[in-house]
Amino acid sequence: MSVQGSIRLAHGAGARLTADLIREVFAPAFGNEHTARAEDAAEVRLAGTRLAFSTDAHVVRPLFFAGGDIGKLAVCGTVNDLAMKGARPRYLSLGFVIAEGFAIAELRRIAESIGAAAREADVEVAAGDTKVVERGAADGLFITAAGIGEIPEGRDLSPARLAAGDALVVSAPVAEHGLAVLDAREKLGLGPAFRSDCAPLGSLVEAAFASGAEIHALRDPTRGGLATVCLEFAGLSGRRLVLRERDLPVRPAVASAAALLGLDPLYVACEGVCLAAVAGRDAGKLVAALRAHPLGVQAGIVGRVEEGPAGAEIETAAGGRRRLAWLEGEPLPRIC
Amino acid sequence: MSVQGSIRLAHGAGARLTADLIREVFAPAFGNEHTARAEDAAEVRLAGTRLAFSTDAHVVRPLFFAGGDIGKLAVCGTVNDLAMKGARPRYLSLGFVIAEGFAIAELRRIAESIGAAAREADVEVAAGDTKVVERGAADGLFITAAGIGEIPEGRDLSPARLAAGDALVVSAPVAEHGLAVLDAREKLGLGPAFRSDCAPLGSLVEAAFASGAEIHALRDPTRGGLATVCLEFAGLSGRRLVLRERDLPVRPAVASAAALLGLDPLYVACEGVCLAAVAGRDAGKLVAALRAHPLGVQAGIVGRVEEGPAGAEIETAAGGRRRLAWLEGEPLPRIC
Repeated sequence: MSVQGSIRLAHGAGARLTADLIREVFAPAFGNEHTARAEDAAEVRLAGTRLAFSTDAHVVRPLFFAGGDIGKLAVCGTVNDLAMKGARPRYLSLGFVIAEGFAIAELRRIAESIGAAAREADVEVAAGDTKVVERGAADGLFITAAGIGEIPEGRDLSPARLAAGDALVVSAPVAEHGLAVLDAREKLGLGPAFRSDCAPLGSLVEAAFASGAEIHALRDPTRGGLATVCLEFAGLSGRRLVLRERDLPVRPAVASAAALLGLDPLYVACEGVCLAAVAGRDAGKLVAALRAHPLGVQAGIVGRVEEGPAGAEIETAAGGRRRLAWLEGEPLPRIC
Repeated sequence: MSVQGSIRLAHGAGARLTADLIREVFAPAFGNEHTARAEDAAEVRLAGTRLAFSTDAHVVRPLFFAGGDIGKLAVCGTVNDLAMKGARPRYLSLGFVIAEGFAIAELRRIAESIGAAAREADVEVAAGDTKVVERGAADGLFITAAGIGEIPEGRDLSPARLAAGDALVVSAPVAEHGLAVLDAREKLGLGPAFRSDCAPLGSLVEAAFASGAEIHALRDPTRGGLATVCLEFAGLSGRRLVLRERDLPVRPAVASAAALLGLDPLYVACEGVCLAAVAGRDAGKLVAALRAHPLGVQAGIVGRVEEGPAGAEIETAAGGRRRLAWLEGEPLPRIC
């Protein structure tokens, strides 16, 4: 067993230690086909209906940041996990854990943000629960959102479907969310150009399917960023994912700030970006459809899928290849 | 607005201040028909399938107590909310918020308890998420569980269906869970007779429906206890609920301990008890079916529904009537 002793921040980073925790602690106790599939949302069947079901716990600090807050994030995080399964998000449940003494005015602001995000995402908050703990027993407020969506027939997304020749398409510039939260938390003063990209991606995914492109898998690069999603896809498909550095969408200001902070933008979270693996011949069609959507105007092909051995690499601007490795620590805790 | 200033423990007690918070903060921001109905689980429709959808945040302290732990409680709490809508619980999602430094051995024990409870309840954990926060940013571990169940056609439970002449049936003795948690937390030394009744009620509810009794509403008296559920039923139906003190199932040891602690057992949480409102002529049939189930051997009729005005009363052993009032404070925080 590699998981022993006590919980570290990295166990919640969504990267290797999280996978270890799931494999060694959770799966033996209550694992099943869903746990084994390690996706952000599960597909379940009820009375013949295909549903996606997902949950995300949100502990972001600070609660408010440029471009969003914990409420908007809770809605978008869960809606996006559903959309990445090809589902149409429909209903959310929200579990609040609030510390005694929390300002009602802040709670009201967060609730309003939840309402606005739910309307934008066209989902209903159908169920909720509120628990209050003593002052000091929780850092202000945590929100866990679960969601249900309907998966239309004919949509069958899974990293296992990745095939050599697939193109990798990214819908928007990466690393925006993580830097915006870090800016707000550490008062870095990065300026108004740094805003979270937090947005519900359901309508973007609908546009992608409407293009008719043969999409094999979708995932939103949240904790652990684009590199971690590529490594997950590689592990689940046995394929090699190759990103081209010069085609990666990173705004210059974000690249500079990340460099100054010692962060690789490929490992920094996004909350409004989608990575798609699509049959190579359909890549142009998919990119065109994404670009016609307000959240995908900067979409582009960023790489390709090759036969294994499983792994993820980046072709550098200089023409070399660099292996992408799993994050070991937790460089940016509490960003979602 | 009566909700202002800052959050108090009582805002999470599941009684009047919680209702105020929902009505004044959450409902204006993201309310809908589900919020208005104020039930523990929502009924939603997807592709013609009737689903129940529910969530519960769990913050119980201590994490382990006689008869259960936070893991078992998370599974049972959500499963029971679904069952109270007449649904067959099917899938759960779990969101963990864990403090850095939490012992992996304890987490493993809680995970095993989740697995055992899920098998007992015949549900699958289909989705999960784990977040880790810094030491001190959370009191050990919180678990938010959401669940989906399938509502068979012909089941239509709602407090609004309560009618004069209905019988009130309780499936098991009340107040066991709250006292067991209090015993563990305050080290009262009440002894081995004090154990949480925490149990999944899905199969008990199936037995109730199999009896053919015309059941109008079900609810599990958790936070706020049996009295609070009666008040909620009264508010939602406009009827008067009358409990008979001499028929209320409270074990003598529990009654004595509650008296010593200054608690009214009618306001203390259960986690394995169901209150049913059933057409008067079918009460005997329902009680017989419940008594044939291991979790209902002490089931009995405890009262009746009368025409309004809305309210809840208790007929005392001496023949008088006492009005049941909403809890104002939070006598037992963090019991679920």
